[in-house]
Amino acid sequence: MRHFLTTEDWSQAELQALLDDARALKQSPQNERLRGRRCALLFFNPSLRTRTSFQVGIADLGGHSVVLDAAGTWPLEVEPGAVMDGEAEEHVAEAARVLSTYVDLIAIRAFPKFENWSREREDPILAGFVKHATVPIINMETIVHPCQELAMLMALQERHGDLAGKKLCLTWTYHPKPLNTAVANSALLAATKMGMDVTLLCPSKEYILDEKFMRAGERFAAEHGRGVTVTHDIAEAYEGADAVYAKSWGRLDQIGLPMADRMTPENLKYFIVDEEKMALTNDATFSHCLPMRRNIKATDAVVDGPNSLIIQEAENRLHVQKAVLSALIGR
Amino acid sequence: MRHFLTTEDWSQAELQALLDDARALKQSPQNERLRGRRCALLFFNPSLRTRTSFQVGIADLGGHSVVLDAAGTWPLEVEPGAVMDGEAEEHVAEAARVLSTYVDLIAIRAFPKFENWSREREDPILAGFVKHATVPIINMETIVHPCQELAMLMALQERHGDLAGKKLCLTWTYHPKPLNTAVANSALLAATKMGMDVTLLCPSKEYILDEKFMRAGERFAAEHGRGVTVTHDIAEAYEGADAVYAKSWGRLDQIGLPMADRMTPENLKYFIVDEEKMALTNDATFSHCLPMRRNIKATDAVVDGPNSLIIQEAENRLHVQKAVLSALIGR
Amino acid sequence: MRHFLTTEDWSQAELQALLDDARALKQSPQNERLRGRRCALLFFNPSLRTRTSFQVGIADLGGHSVVLDAAGTWPLEVEPGAVMDGEAEEHVAEAARVLSTYVDLIAIRAFPKFENWSREREDPILAGFVKHATVPIINMETIVHPCQELAMLMALQERHGDLAGKKLCLTWTYHPKPLNTAVANSALLAATKMGMDVTLLCPSKEYILDEKFMRAGERFAAEHGRGVTVTHDIAEAYEGADAVYAKSWGRLDQIGLPMADRMTPENLKYFIVDEEKMALTNDATFSHCLPMRRNIKATDAVVDGPNSLIIQEAENRLHVQKAVLSALIGR
Repeated sequence: MRHFLTTEDWSQAELQALLDDARALKQSPQNERLRGRRCALLFFNPSLRTRTSFQVGIADLGGHSVVLDAAGTWPLEVEPGAVMDGEAEEHVAEAARVLSTYVDLIAIRAFPKFENWSREREDPILAGFVKHATVPIINMETIVHPCQELAMLMALQERHGDLAGKKLCLTWTYHPKPLNTAVANSALLAATKMGMDVTLLCPSKEYILDEKFMRAGERFAAEHGRGVTVTHDIAEAYEGADAVYAKSWGRLDQIGLPMADRMTPENLKYFIVDEEKMALTNDATFSHCLPMRRNIKATDAVVDGPNSLIIQEAENRLHVQKAVLSALIGR
Repeated sequence: MRHFLTTEDWSQAELQALLDDARALKQSPQNERLRGRRCALLFFNPSLRTRTSFQVGIADLGGHSVVLDAAGTWPLEVEPGAVMDGEAEEHVAEAARVLSTYVDLIAIRAFPKFENWSREREDPILAGFVKHATVPIINMETIVHPCQELAMLMALQERHGDLAGKKLCLTWTYHPKPLNTAVANSALLAATKMGMDVTLLCPSKEYILDEKFMRAGERFAAEHGRGVTVTHDIAEAYEGADAVYAKSWGRLDQIGLPMADRMTPENLKYFIVDEEKMALTNDATFSHCLPMRRNIKATDAVVDGPNSLIIQEAENRLHVQKAVLSALIGR
Repeated sequence: MRHFLTTEDWSQAELQALLDDARALKQSPQNERLRGRRCALLFFNPSLRTRTSFQVGIADLGGHSVVLDAAGTWPLEVEPGAVMDGEAEEHVAEAARVLSTYVDLIAIRAFPKFENWSREREDPILAGFVKHATVPIINMETIVHPCQELAMLMALQERHGDLAGKKLCLTWTYHPKPLNTAVANSALLAATKMGMDVTLLCPSKEYILDEKFMRAGERFAAEHGRGVTVTHDIAEAYEGADAVYAKSWGRLDQIGLPMADRMTPENLKYFIVDEEKMALTNDATFSHCLPMRRNIKATDAVVDGPNSLIIQEAENRLHVQKAVLSALIGR
């Protein structure tokens, strides 16, 4: 039995096989690979895009999905041995074991709460399900977002072909709130695994991603003789890039502070992806996981330009997830 | 590619074809017309009846539906060129294009917020999806409610046969809150399109519907040599009516005021549909879209009487929606 | 047409037939018994386990389910003749009749609000649907929880075989909030119907269950020459028990008081099911409907021990509900 928790657990060849299958499913979307299979989609955070693409994908393969909206309503205990006299009415030990008797696969979205990063970086809810469930588990975004990674890689391969040696500019952008780092972590992991040269552009060292993802990215890059560069210099980052991936995220050193103290200063709005910056690149493609604030993260001209992959990447979520589902529980 | 946004876009013959198919589907409810088709049901406002009838109807035709509950959780930007530094995290341009890659049809419920009618009467969310989506769209109630119209017409035809020349009394009724005008607008459009004589009964001129719907109704009526009469005289409105349709709605001139200033005065409760008023009619049928407050909108005697069509009209939602789905994306 | 509202309406032989079918479905879970059938799952209170097991079960049998989340959003009027000028926008007369035109079965969860037990003990929402609906109805937990009863009986039979003459210790346990009595009522009804000797253990006479369930349990027990014993003595209750069923519930005499006055005193935590108490039994099995607070209701050692049936009982919800669905609307 295998899970899809992070691409770190999957080799480049295995990921490529998923991407190849996703391309086949894009051409021929409906079959019976999941006939009789039931999947629980468990959301501890809201979702529209992920929910829709999973539900449609499972139906396309002849399976059945149940959406469980646990956002705010199902505080789960994850600590072994806990005396449960607080908020939590249920322990993950029971939740995971019972769901495993109802369904053939559990997909989970559980963002960190950004209250205590030293604990949250261990992905405790996902880890709890992995420990106790007896069916395969898919990560629908926790501290990484591996389905988004595959969708990104698929879109990049569709445009660029082989990604080895291509330069990715992974740029932080402004957003008033301190967002989850998961997509940025994932873009770094996915790109380096495929042999891309990655430049991480962010306003200052406080915005650098957790070292466990930085080290993993460096390790993957090194396996291809590539590297990961961190810079705060916009021109350096965009210069010669083949692909620009934009995302906002919050500072890890501010986790746990009151939200009012964690809002991103407006003077960082100049990180917006615009035509001037894109002109520095090697005619780079542009992408961003959605949703995306227009004219804050990127200008309309970039978003609606011919090199924008945002819709294609979002569409690819459907195809890559079907490939993952097939790999884990397909007939 | 065709949408079902308002019956104004559909000719009388086309609407009749939908109604005829709905009657056939009422007899023989299950088939494979939507085999392999996926439909997103996007609710910006709560729904139980519409949601159930669409989900059941799509399943009856062999299709798959995904319910997206955006009520309060997904503020969408609809203005082109907006700098999105406010509440909205996503632009309708992306929402519509991405959903179009996941599904074959998008159905949308998006009530006006009744904050700014001059903008809201242009139905901006629905219009945004129409502009950007690449799949057919169904209106599940915005500023009109065309599915309710078809259900009403079907129930009236089942009882009255040909509706041409029949008199409809469309009566405002009391409700403490200023409700959406959509169903009233729609009842006017549908009835006049089928050649009914419509009398709109309301407490005063401030309750008259938006002139764009009044003018459309008059135009449709004129095509059949009929008319639309506005009256504040209860006896005149009920006199000789073949059908009474009841609905409450708020005053357009109060939109934007604080809610406390927009509550309907209790001294208008006398608009309730009761046996005394119904006795003035030509043994009229009674209907109301549901939900309906008993003994506020209409008395139990009327609601439960032999001429009440409320359950039949609600049931017909299922059948007419299946006819619309078949027309737009059926095999 | 038959409903599944309470096991009181079903004979021991009929319940055993459901349990026998559930065992067969546990071996062979998927078939076409509900092909073309549509079921509405109507939740006035949150649910994850019940929702999942019903949705999966209906899909396993080839049927289609629609989940209607009415929690907090759909105040229904249930009194005949009500002048509906309060919160409720719809009367159960319309809700039940309309849903009956859309689906072939309605399943309902509607907990008492514990504001007025003399009215709530008549189960007014469920009774309203029974009165007005024209399709079969399943109780998904109101003042009793008959699906949980069947799951409990199935798990007990799987371990103990014939239950006649076996001793069940039904023990109250601490929980800070005054919970619904439904599962306790149901455990009493189910066990006595199968001929078990039941000992109800609770802190004091104020915790004894509603007399209508106590009397029914005594009547069922008497039909087998058994009895129902009430005790506040822990040793007496556990002594020689073959099965221990744990559950917390609130005092009926405190219903209607402010919640702050209804919290369970912490000095009753000693009712926790632990190894010391279990050592008094006849190697009893342990069960509890889920969710369950670990180390509050029962210790980890008991919960994770070899005699714990909690996961098996939860799994059985799926199987017994499929048997009930088949009995009511199966082909």
